[in-house]
Amino acid sequence: MSVADIDRDRGARTGHPEVVLGSGKSQSDLQLIVEEMLETGIAPLIVTRATAEQAELFPDGHYDPEGKVIVIRALKSARASGRVAVVSGGTSDAPVVSEAATVLRAFGIDPLIIVDAGVAGVHRTLKAAEQMDGIDVVIAVAGMEASLPTVLAGLISAPIIGVPTSVGYGASFDGLAALLSMMASCAPGVTVVNIDNGFGAALAALRIIGRC
Amino acid sequence: MSVADIDRDRGARTGHPEVVLGSGKSQSDLQLIVEEMLETGIAPLIVTRATAEQAELFPDGHYDPEGKVIVIRALKSARASGRVAVVSGGTSDAPVVSEAATVLRAFGIDPLIIVDAGVAGVHRTLKAAEQMDGIDVVIAVAGMEASLPTVLAGLISAPIIGVPTSVGYGASFDGLAALLSMMASCAPGVTVVNIDNGFGAALAALRIIGRC
Amino acid sequence: MSVADIDRDRGARTGHPEVVLGSGKSQSDLQLIVEEMLETGIAPLIVTRATAEQAELFPDGHYDPEGKVIVIRALKSARASGRVAVVSGGTSDAPVVSEAATVLRAFGIDPLIIVDAGVAGVHRTLKAAEQMDGIDVVIAVAGMEASLPTVLAGLISAPIIGVPTSVGYGASFDGLAALLSMMASCAPGVTVVNIDNGFGAALAALRIIGRC
Amino acid sequence: MSVADIDRDRGARTGHPEVVLGSGKSQSDLQLIVEEMLETGIAPLIVTRATAEQAELFPDGHYDPEGKVIVIRALKSARASGRVAVVSGGTSDAPVVSEAATVLRAFGIDPLIIVDAGVAGVHRTLKAAEQMDGIDVVIAVAGMEASLPTVLAGLISAPIIGVPTSVGYGASFDGLAALLSMMASCAPGVTVVNIDNGFGAALAALRIIGRC
Amino acid sequence: MSVADIDRDRGARTGHPEVVLGSGKSQSDLQLIVEEMLETGIAPLIVTRATAEQAELFPDGHYDPEGKVIVIRALKSARASGRVAVVSGGTSDAPVVSEAATVLRAFGIDPLIIVDAGVAGVHRTLKAAEQMDGIDVVIAVAGMEASLPTVLAGLISAPIIGVPTSVGYGASFDGLAALLSMMASCAPGVTVVNIDNGFGAALAALRIIGRC
Amino acid sequence: MSVADIDRDRGARTGHPEVVLGSGKSQSDLQLIVEEMLETGIAPLIVTRATAEQAELFPDGHYDPEGKVIVIRALKSARASGRVAVVSGGTSDAPVVSEAATVLRAFGIDPLIIVDAGVAGVHRTLKAAEQMDGIDVVIAVAGMEASLPTVLAGLISAPIIGVPTSVGYGASFDGLAALLSMMASCAPGVTVVNIDNGFGAALAALRIIGRC
Amino acid sequence: MSVADIDRDRGARTGHPEVVLGSGKSQSDLQLIVEEMLETGIAPLIVTRATAEQAELFPDGHYDPEGKVIVIRALKSARASGRVAVVSGGTSDAPVVSEAATVLRAFGIDPLIIVDAGVAGVHRTLKAAEQMDGIDVVIAVAGMEASLPTVLAGLISAPIIGVPTSVGYGASFDGLAALLSMMASCAPGVTVVNIDNGFGAALAALRIIGRC
Amino acid sequence: MSVADIDRDRGARTGHPEVVLGSGKSQSDLQLIVEEMLETGIAPLIVTRATAEQAELFPDGHYDPEGKVIVIRALKSARASGRVAVVSGGTSDAPVVSEAATVLRAFGIDPLIIVDAGVAGVHRTLKAAEQMDGIDVVIAVAGMEASLPTVLAGLISAPIIGVPTSVGYGASFDGLAALLSMMASCAPGVTVVNIDNGFGAALAALRIIGRC
Repeated sequence: MSVADIDRDRGARTGHPEVVLGSGKSQSDLQLIVEEMLETGIAPLIVTRATAEQAELFPDGHYDPEGKVIVIRALKSARASGRVAVVSGGTSDAPVVSEAATVLRAFGIDPLIIVDAGVAGVHRTLKAAEQMDGIDVVIAVAGMEASLPTVLAGLISAPIIGVPTSVGYGASFDGLAALLSMMASCAPGVTVVNIDNGFGAALAALRIIGRC
Repeated sequence: MSVADIDRDRGARTGHPEVVLGSGKSQSDLQLIVEEMLETGIAPLIVTRATAEQAELFPDGHYDPEGKVIVIRALKSARASGRVAVVSGGTSDAPVVSEAATVLRAFGIDPLIIVDAGVAGVHRTLKAAEQMDGIDVVIAVAGMEASLPTVLAGLISAPIIGVPTSVGYGASFDGLAALLSMMASCAPGVTVVNIDNGFGAALAALRIIGRC
Repeated sequence: MSVADIDRDRGARTGHPEVVLGSGKSQSDLQLIVEEMLETGIAPLIVTRATAEQAELFPDGHYDPEGKVIVIRALKSARASGRVAVVSGGTSDAPVVSEAATVLRAFGIDPLIIVDAGVAGVHRTLKAAEQMDGIDVVIAVAGMEASLPTVLAGLISAPIIGVPTSVGYGASFDGLAALLSMMASCAPGVTVVNIDNGFGAALAALRIIGRC
Repeated sequence: MSVADIDRDRGARTGHPEVVLGSGKSQSDLQLIVEEMLETGIAPLIVTRATAEQAELFPDGHYDPEGKVIVIRALKSARASGRVAVVSGGTSDAPVVSEAATVLRAFGIDPLIIVDAGVAGVHRTLKAAEQMDGIDVVIAVAGMEASLPTVLAGLISAPIIGVPTSVGYGASFDGLAALLSMMASCAPGVTVVNIDNGFGAALAALRIIGRC
Repeated sequence: MSVADIDRDRGARTGHPEVVLGSGKSQSDLQLIVEEMLETGIAPLIVTRATAEQAELFPDGHYDPEGKVIVIRALKSARASGRVAVVSGGTSDAPVVSEAATVLRAFGIDPLIIVDAGVAGVHRTLKAAEQMDGIDVVIAVAGMEASLPTVLAGLISAPIIGVPTSVGYGASFDGLAALLSMMASCAPGVTVVNIDNGFGAALAALRIIGRC
Repeated sequence: MSVADIDRDRGARTGHPEVVLGSGKSQSDLQLIVEEMLETGIAPLIVTRATAEQAELFPDGHYDPEGKVIVIRALKSARASGRVAVVSGGTSDAPVVSEAATVLRAFGIDPLIIVDAGVAGVHRTLKAAEQMDGIDVVIAVAGMEASLPTVLAGLISAPIIGVPTSVGYGASFDGLAALLSMMASCAPGVTVVNIDNGFGAALAALRIIGRC
Repeated sequence: MSVADIDRDRGARTGHPEVVLGSGKSQSDLQLIVEEMLETGIAPLIVTRATAEQAELFPDGHYDPEGKVIVIRALKSARASGRVAVVSGGTSDAPVVSEAATVLRAFGIDPLIIVDAGVAGVHRTLKAAEQMDGIDVVIAVAGMEASLPTVLAGLISAPIIGVPTSVGYGASFDGLAALLSMMASCAPGVTVVNIDNGFGAALAALRIIGRC
Repeated sequence: MSVADIDRDRGARTGHPEVVLGSGKSQSDLQLIVEEMLETGIAPLIVTRATAEQAELFPDGHYDPEGKVIVIRALKSARASGRVAVVSGGTSDAPVVSEAATVLRAFGIDPLIIVDAGVAGVHRTLKAAEQMDGIDVVIAVAGMEASLPTVLAGLISAPIIGVPTSVGYGASFDGLAALLSMMASCAPGVTVVNIDNGFGAALAALRIIGRC
């Protein structure tokens, strides 16, 4: 049996092709799958949740060690012209910010990055909102009580994709508190992706700006 | 003390003004708040999660008994020109579909409605995906195992907002199964709002098409 | 056997005497317990979570139907001179605000009440923080994503007691989202009481101002 | 005391004899138990959740390192003639697929294996369903939102045993999302075994084809 | 829009046609849907989770008030010849037993019913196992600690479908204890359906005996 | 400050003195505490959840490496004459069995040990019940679906203390399934201690036979 | 089929015969079952969780409306001579206290009842412990944070059976907080039964004093 | 982009400046952030949840290895004159006690430390309460069933901040039992911070004594 059955037409159907999940794959399986995808001409071609050891398999690729993304083949120019911001509550959310940013860049989008805009220093949140003038989609990354997207949603009109993170301890319960908080948000119009899922947020943002 | 402190400028800041949550409000408080909002010229002016008894307070409004929304003042024409679809897994999801649709209509958007596209009859899901050609945002409403947005995400390129519903029993745990399922979806690019939150999905869709 | 064993010395030991929990008590048991407590000279003498029917047993008492508190005997003057604010995220939190305020008044403290300071309209939160100049303890009542105490904690120096409420639906899970959110708050120095526990927050505030 | 009390007659009563759980057993205890079982003539004789180190104890056995199963004694020919398929949502589910397949082979059944039939590429799911013509039992292995058995159940008439896997992160909560999703499935007739329990699914399949 | 989109070919594809879920449907919607299905010649035609009021709509149907199933059109003879047993732990599980039995009878299968075989009186469980000689599928219904399928699985060779029920209180948590208990069962080969899902168990049994 | 404040009179008050919890204690702190307790003449003197490294501190003590208990000073003869049985579902429960047995022996009670009496081979459970004739307290240790105490409770008249174990995977959720199962047991008269708490079960048994 | 299969020999095997669970049983089924049990001479004969309407079926029985127990036939004299105390944290725990006490009395045991011994007034707990001199088993009933059995376990030597109650709100989560608290108790030797299970505690106590 | 955006004015607004969370920060990022904060003159300057390796970066700082706090710059004298006690249930809670104490000392407050005051030896709790005469705030640290703050609240009048700890196993569920127990406490006036959050408790105490 083959190790995988690649969905070659997904890019045509959905605007973004299948992506390889690195975690749990052996070196040989990963190599095989990527080679098969390279042959099909899929672009961009990225591996997410990839280890440094996996990155060594692809010396021509670009590896983001913080976001754990290998970009083997990037789009030269974006298929859409929207502007995306990635904003985070605190510096501990950096891996998720980095994953989202690297994926966006592989699709030809260079996002605006704003870190440390957490609501415990709400003046920084207000400052961040001002910087977002003209932005088409906001990816708001936050752990702990995760109220960043709620506050932003009352300040700006762009679509906001919340990414709860597993940052925190105790009652954070590995991101559950952040997830429920974003879900229960009193600010309508916020949507949410899985805990620590910077990649999913990037693809959701790409779906949106594909419409701009 | 006043019963509420209306956020008069939210419409200017975010593109959609404050909305009144009917549930838990007394008849007199609701009347007071709505009158105050009418004076400020807020439009549209809607009350969500409203009872039939609350709707009787506003004989000039339009009441959607299934979605439990009172539209007191609607926008005559939409502020954006995007096309929105609301698709559901089964007929039991109808109240959530109706809430989303009525809110969209109050903002001048007439959505495409597709019911009974659940994946247990996946040919209906495929048919629904075909009908969505040209749609700018899809609101996918599903309870139980809630895999509708996952299947759609592999078929179309538009942004997909998943709404898990509390339809189901036993291990559905009032929508928890549907929520976790949508969160954990293997199809990247799906975003999610709160359980049964058709209203929130409509506002998220409006944020997106405000960018189209 | 007696229906209860009143802790007569608790007032002396802790500064605030035992309080009667109305919920689940029969009319006759409630009457017996209150009469016994009246004889001991306990003051203030209050019944919490009390129904209107229970309030009819005590025609000389004051009943707060929103907070569901019967004040049978109030303190004429406070035993401490601190100033307390009760601030809430939205109008639906009113019952909890009212329970806290009525209990505080029974102890001779007239709190500052600020409603609708929720962070989705963060300018109202900023305005509320300004009003709190000179306040000794803040009780911050919020449901849904419950980020009000987090934002306040970055703005003021007074002790903040968060009260998560069961306001919300779906992923709010009867206040669990609000509870975890307040617990996981990124703003250090916030403390939390049980869901909907306006009474407990009032007593915690009294312990604090007893030290002022 | 003996380290175990082998249930020698279970094979006669139930059609499949007791199996050894490798995890947590010391090398010496495992050797003793297996020797005792070899003497009783039990067949097949397999150790599940076994480490490579444990496999070295039995040089004549066959070790499946992916499924972590040691087959010490296999059935030469199956006791029943049914056909079983093991189908999975993604390549990360491979260990569970392998555990099920190795156990089936030890009982003389050679299953049809189909990988990467996940519903995010629903055309692959449809293709997999077509391949299942003539199959008597389907073991459907899926993590994340785990909707594979739901979609299959609307396409084929064979019994479907869902195996939720712990593949995923964040809101997958170690397979809880997949488990609840399969439980809450809108497609009647799907049954479910424990998370990652390929072994249990294989034995359930054997019970079914024992009736064919 | 139509109230439903009936999956007319499901019977041909899967061997059992779509079934109507009564709960949450209005009288008029239910009547419309059933009439449309009657025209298509679907058989059997059943409504599950139906109220007595809903049953009055179909005076020619047979209503099982305990299992809450309306059988509008039954199969005259079964499409397969397998024998099914429905066994329960206690008398409080009767509604789930009845739902499963009525659905089976609508498909032409007359099940063996054994009640009160709970393991706290394990001699009754042993007696029940003896009665199951020659049975092809066992549906084991149990609430509370739900160990009935585990004990049976060590005694008989037929496939066992466990149905956890919401019978119990406190730490039963509406069937969660029973569900987890069946999932974690130490007896391999047991499969499980949703809490209280007698209907789903019946359809799973029909899938199995369709292979006999 | 001292590292601990030993409760010297607990033995006199409750019949069994304070016990030292090894886990998390540094070598030096553990040595200090034990020396202080040796001086007070406390007997028995045991350390639970102790590592082999901790055991090396007390060369005159007896270390049970499976149950992870150090017995530094044992009672020469029991203070009561009851008979205790420790029975387990499977061999993987051995560490909990061993912890309970070693603690009982330190108090001068030599328990009857019965392993592998799990209900999936219910004839072994029946055989175990027969062996318990004359026993005064039964400690029933079981993981996974944990129905051993339920079955025993229908067979014998002695008090039964259930110990759920963390044995299992997936939906066992580290012993939660076993805990809820024992709690929800349909067999009245079973009591339960914490997951994997062989020590607590032993002390509860000692409390009971102290009354014999 | 008969409505039940009575376990006639359980009394002989276990010392206490089968008991009827009233909740969920129809009037006619309850009458049939009780009549059948009366014929077998079972004593005592009790119905738990019974409504007042159910009690009217048995005019010769004694109904405890608080504990919801019908005693149809009581033992004239106890089969054992132990002394049992039932102690509770607060007056709201009264229904559980009453259920336990009524069941004990039906078995000929007249328990010592102590109410309002909650640890928030720890001097009352100390007083209660003093009253327990000579008691053979203590049933400690407590809701909310449920620390009563923990404090008692440090003061007395008798076996302690904790009954967590569903008294409380918010984070009490219907008794979950009390259950986990008792399970996690730092006082070894406490055992626990299901939430609100006064009946089970009574039977566990009877098992213990059957050994005195 | 900078690695952080320091909130320089927080000290002026709230009375205590931003603190650095060590966990998850690289050596270089931590050095950069601390240097930037040193330049702004922030005092005290502390790093929490810091490893020994991180502490080596700051040879002039004081490192508390038990509480894992680096104090780089301490306040010479406290800004308020209140007295704080930190009391714990058992010696295993020591890391949380140490974190709270070290943070308090960095702010110029030397707390009274009382260990091993757990309620299983309630006489020690009573003794601890006596020692607290004149204390302005009590931080009560407890794991397992976590009833220490409840008992204290019935004995003293000072504000009590409960810190649930992750000490315990099994049903402690990493501090969840302790958290729910403190939340559900029957003693009004207790407030709670996150699991193991000694730092947050210290800051809450500082807010309170800032008012004394």
